[in-house]
This record gives sequence, C-alpha cells and structure tokens, in this order.
Amino acid sequence: MLMTTEILMAAGTETGTQLSLPVAMLIIFGAAKLLAELFEQMRQPGIIGEILAGVVIGPSVLNLIAPNENISFLAELGVIFLLFRVGLEVKSTELIKVGRTAAVVGVMGVALPLICGWGLYRLISKPNIEALFVGAALTATSVGITAQVLASKGALRGIAGRIILAAAIIDDVLALLVLGVISAVAQGDANYLELGLTSLFAVLFVLLVVRWGEKAAVGIFGALTRLLRIRDGQFALAIIIMFALAALSAKAGVAPIIGAFLAGMAMSDGITPRVHELSQGAAELLIPFFLVNIGLHLDVSVFRSRSTLVLGIVVLVVAIVAKIVGCGLGALGHGRMTALRVGLGMVPRGEFCFAVVQVGLMLRAIPPQTYGVVVFMAVVSTLATPVFLKMAFSENAPQ
Amino acid sequence: MLMTTEILMAAGTETGTQLSLPVAMLIIFGAAKLLAELFEQMRQPGIIGEILAGVVIGPSVLNLIAPNENISFLAELGVIFLLFRVGLEVKSTELIKVGRTAAVVGVMGVALPLICGWGLYRLISKPNIEALFVGAALTATSVGITAQVLASKGALRGIAGRIILAAAIIDDVLALLVLGVISAVAQGDANYLELGLTSLFAVLFVLLVVRWGEKAAVGIFGALTRLLRIRDGQFALAIIIMFALAALSAKAGVAPIIGAFLAGMAMSDGITPRVHELSQGAAELLIPFFLVNIGLHLDVSVFRSRSTLVLGIVVLVVAIVAKIVGCGLGALGHGRMTALRVGLGMVPRGEFCFAVVQVGLMLRAIPPQTYGVVVFMAVVSTLATPVFLKMAFSENAPQ
Repeated sequence: MLMTTEILMAAGTETGTQLSLPVAMLIIFGAAKLLAELFEQMRQPGIIGEILAGVVIGPSVLNLIAPNENISFLAELGVIFLLFRVGLEVKSTELIKVGRTAAVVGVMGVALPLICGWGLYRLISKPNIEALFVGAALTATSVGITAQVLASKGALRGIAGRIILAAAIIDDVLALLVLGVISAVAQGDANYLELGLTSLFAVLFVLLVVRWGEKAAVGIFGALTRLLRIRDGQFALAIIIMFALAALSAKAGVAPIIGAFLAGMAMSDGITPRVHELSQGAAELLIPFFLVNIGLHLDVSVFRSRSTLVLGIVVLVVAIVAKIVGCGLGALGHGRMTALRVGLGMVPRGEFCFAVVQVGLMLRAIPPQTYGVVVFMAVVSTLATPVFLKMAFSENAPQ
Repeated sequence: MLMTTEILMAAGTETGTQLSLPVAMLIIFGAAKLLAELFEQMRQPGIIGEILAGVVIGPSVLNLIAPNENISFLAELGVIFLLFRVGLEVKSTELIKVGRTAAVVGVMGVALPLICGWGLYRLISKPNIEALFVGAALTATSVGITAQVLASKGALRGIAGRIILAAAIIDDVLALLVLGVISAVAQGDANYLELGLTSLFAVLFVLLVVRWGEKAAVGIFGALTRLLRIRDGQFALAIIIMFALAALSAKAGVAPIIGAFLAGMAMSDGITPRVHELSQGAAELLIPFFLVNIGLHLDVSVFRSRSTLVLGIVVLVVAIVAKIVGCGLGALGHGRMTALRVGLGMVPRGEFCFAVVQVGLMLRAIPPQTYGVVVFMAVVSTLATPVFLKMAFSENAPQ
C-alpha cells in the first residue's frame, strides 16, 4: 500500500527530484552554511565553503543532490539578488569616474584569455572551432563571487572594487559578442552586421541606465511611494524594477545579472533602510543556491584520465594568468597594487562558461572531454579567487 | 543565424518555460502586486488581487504563463515562508490554551465536509469511490490564505485567530489520514494499522514540537549564536531549523507547512528583530508566487459545460457551508461571533485539494470533469475567504 506521503509525493512528481522540497532545501542550504561556518572558523572565506558544499553533496562525492532545473532556477534568482544587492552599495557616479580604465581592463581582460585559450588548443593540435570555443569560455568573468567577497570586506567602493564592477559590465558585453561570433562561425552563418548592432544596442542600454537610471528611479519612487497602499509597496516596486531591468538587459544583449546590478545602483539612494533590509533577506536565502550550484556542476570524471587532468590544470593556469595579466595591465595606471587586485578580482569564471560549453556541445563543436576541462577550470578558478582576494586585500596591504 | 540570446536560451533549456527567468518573474510578481494595489485602492483585500493575477496571466485569460514546475517550486517555498512568518507571531502557550476547542473544530470541520461532499456525489448517482475522493478534497483547510488575512488585520493572536491556527493543524493531520484511507480503498489494499500508526506518529510529533520546541529553540540559539562567525548566522540557523521541521513533519505524516509554522512558533521569542526582518524579506518575495499559482490552476473549461458549472457551484456552496457549520459548531462555546469567524476562516481550500484530485486522477478514481469541479471550488472558496473575513473582522464587529 502506498503511504500518504508517498502518494502526495507521487502526485507532486512535478518537483523533478526524488527528494521532497523541504529535504532538498535543508540539504543544500544546511550544507552551504555548515561548510561556510567551518571555513570561517578556520579564518578562511566562507564563500569557498558554500561552493565546496555543492561539490560534497553533488554527484562527485555524496551524490545526495544532482544538478536540476529547480536548483538552477533558484541559483539564477540567487545571482540576480547578489548583483542587485551589490548595486545597492554602489553609486553610478563612482563607476563613471573609473569608466576609461574599466574599458581598457574589460577589453584586455577578454582579448588575452581568448587569444591564450585559442592558442593553447591550437598548440596541442585541436580543431580551430574547438579552440575558439575554449577561448570564448575563458573570456567572461563571473563577477558575483568577487562582488560577494569585496562586499564582505567593505571594499566595493574602493578604487579596485569600482574598476572591477565597471570592467565586469564591459567584459560581459564583449564576452556575449565573442560567443555570438563563434557560434555563428560554427554554424557557418555569420551575420556580422546583426552582431555589431546587438553589441551597439547593449552598450547604449548600459550607458543609458548608468547615466539616467538614478534620476528615473528617484522620480518613480517619489511619485509612487505615497500613493501605494499595499504593505511594503516600496519593496515590491524595487523588486519589479529589478526584474524589469534584468529582463530588458537580456533583450538588449547583456546578461540579466548586469540589469539587476544596474537596477540596484539606480535605486541605491532612493530606497528606505527597510527595503534594503528586506532585499538582504531575499538575498541571504537565495545566494547559497547560486554558490552550491557551481559546486554541483564539477564532474570528477575529469580526474579519472591523467591526460585530461593535466590539460585541465594547464587550462586553469592559462585562464588565471591571462586574466590577471590582461586586466592588470589595463589598470596599471592606478598603481601596481590596484592593478594586481583588479586582475585577481576578474579571475573567477562561472555560469557563462557553462553556457559557452553547452552551446559548443549542442553545435557539436567540442567533445565532452573539453566540457569537463572547462567546467573544472571554472569551478577551481572560482574557488581560488576568495583566497587570492583575501591576500590582496589583507589588512596590511594599502587600500 | 541564431542570435546570442537565443543561443543562451537554447543552452538553458533547463528553465522549462519559453520565457527567460527575469521575464517570467516580472510578469508573475508584477501582475500580483499590480492587482493587489488595484484591490487595495478599491478598499478590497489585496490578496484577492494576487490570486486573480494568476487567473489573468494564466491559461484561462492572457495565457502568458502556464502552471509549471519552477513556479510550483517557488509557490511551495512561498507557502512555507508564509506559515513560518505566521508562526513567528504566535506563542505555543496561546495555542495550547485553545487546544480543546481547536480539536473539536478540527474534527467537525473535517467530518462534515467529508460526509456532505460524499453524500452530494452519491445523491447524483456517482460511483462510491469518486464520491469519497470529492469528500476528501473538501476536508482540508488551506490555512495560508486565512493566516495572511488575519496577519494583515493584526488578528492572529485574537481568540478566533488562535483557534483557527490550532484547528488547522488538527485538520491537516485528519485530512492526510482521510486521503490515506481513501487512496488505500481505491487501490483495494487498506492497511489500517499502518494508517493508524502514521496518524499517531503525526499527532505525537506535533504535540512534541508544540510542547518542547520553544525550549529547544531557545537552547539552540543560546548555545550557537555567539559561536557563529558567518554573517547573519542566526538567520541561517533559523532557516535551517525551518526546513528541518518542514522535512520532519512531512516524514511524520503532516504537511511541510505545518512544520514551518511550528518552527516559527518555537523561535518566535528567541530571534532578533533583524532575523525577523530578513525572514519578512524572503516571505514578501516568495508569497506572491504561492498566491498566483492558485489562480494559475483555475481551468475555465469548467464554464464551457453548463451542467459542470452548475455542479461546480453546488459543490462550492456545500464546501463553504459544511466548513462554516462544522467548524462554527465546534467553536460555539466561545460565542457566536467567534464561532462565525472560525467557521469563515476555515473555508479556503487550496494546494491539498489539488493533491487529492491529482491522486484521484492517477488512480483513475475520478474523471477529468470532477478534477475541474474541485479545482474551481478550491480557487473560488479561496477568493471568497478574504471578503468573508473582511466583513467578520470589520472594525464595528466586536473583537
């Protein structure tokens, strides 16, 4: 006989996993916070613990949770709230000031990893299209990790923090452009005019929001806040604006997280402390799912073949060094320490890498081995970044 | 040529819907808050607007959003946070005081709708097993709606509010037992000993948490809060306890939302105002998905056949009257006004109904028409409740 809970679970087969929702949530959230706490107790960045929690509970080790649609959904929501929260702590005028440096950092931080990744794969005699996909996978910084670490150190508004945030936006536009071109090449069907227009549109969208977003937000809040009768109406309004800009940015050819960041920045001055605190609550709940989801994607099968593992490590080193050198050179005008911090802050790769190699697999441009290598690079570079930043932003180093 | 966003969307086919995450979130959250605001402006309960938003954007009207796994997931999270938040405003001693009344209310509020639903379907010559499923679908109150309305009126801790909350727990245990028995009958394989043991276990679990949960929570927070080094560690701890009790309650044969409610109640005294506010943030973000999801499930095909519509209305009236009379009689000792309020507060049916008829469909015990009728009853009873409660808890009525 079926027991009641089994019946209800069978009726709720929609949930996609064998685990009920509370059990899955408990495992993911609980493991993330437990490992974060362990790392903090050892004076290490808690964020590493949260990513490692994904590795531990994932298919690689305990196999309690497999990556699935619901977790990806919460993860995407989590990184949107992460960037929104970061935006709330930054003023657009501060980003505009470092705009020129950030542009150079962004361009060099995309170009060098692209060339190095492509060059490495050509050197080991891989097909040109595969080499291009690996290069593309090395381009985009996953700014969420760095932003989270900098926020916890109160370093978001320092010169390095601001350059990193502004450069990450430019990096994102360029990386999407690179992926567009390479996908078109893989399909033998490149419409460069269309790609150029998309990029132009993306740049215009970002500039528009950075320049006028704050005024628009102040205007909207000023006009509507008094009229709203629903409870916590200003919070609802802030969330709606956040999702609207995330949706618009995706339409304009930029990642949704960039829109969420711009929304936060536009509203940073206009919202009440209560809205700030309510946003924190949503962010604190959801961000662990973003971090755990990164760890879940690590596939240890990479480690089974020695040659794959060696290749993974080489790609990892190239990815890290190319980013540090490319971005660091771009920021050298602000001194060596700032250049180093910017370079290190741009190292993590994440969800964009997963997207690139998924497209590559879909278009049959890369073999599964390359998928494993790139994901390995993304997860390990992300895990390494908090350690790098901890050293570069230590209390002894000049701010 | 595929454009970049299309490529990324194709790579992210995991999201299950054609809409990207920010667009779907914008439509759901935005529509919920817009209609809530419209209703509040007309001095009507905003919660009706949020449920109707689901009807409007759902397959019935605009067809922008279809019920899907990701929304159900957020909805389930939302109702867990709703009940958790309600629990935070209630003390266990206050529930224990009304325990005897609540037990009578719970038992009569399950028995009468069960008998009436079954009787009605037998009267119109439907098979016995179908009649039993309809009866079972009429049993369980969806306490989330009532709790949300009472919280907005500051009436959770009044006598009627406390009786409703305590009775809803008993109601839930009984309704799950009824579903278990009827499913077993439908499969011709009833192990009553096992069902009895499950119920006993459920009751013991609830009593244990109500009686000792507060002490345990105070002890846990007292011992751990100072030791925790992660940021907002107390909030993380509260969320972990919430998911743990939700998971345990499901194991013990009670709905996860009851566990979340008990967790909130146990922690109501032990947590800081900041944890309270962070929980509010998560709840404010997620609850609209629970409400919209109810509206999404309404299937207007019920209205296409006149006989189905008539049957739907009859079932609706029976469902409402049987609950009001059953629960009201149980609470009559506290005066007529309290009895009426308790009866009205127990009217809404929701996610449990959907589960019952899904099980019924799965076991081929009910035809699709009955599914439509029951869902119609659930959605409309839920929509009607805030109106009822608004009248019963109006400022002129004695508290």
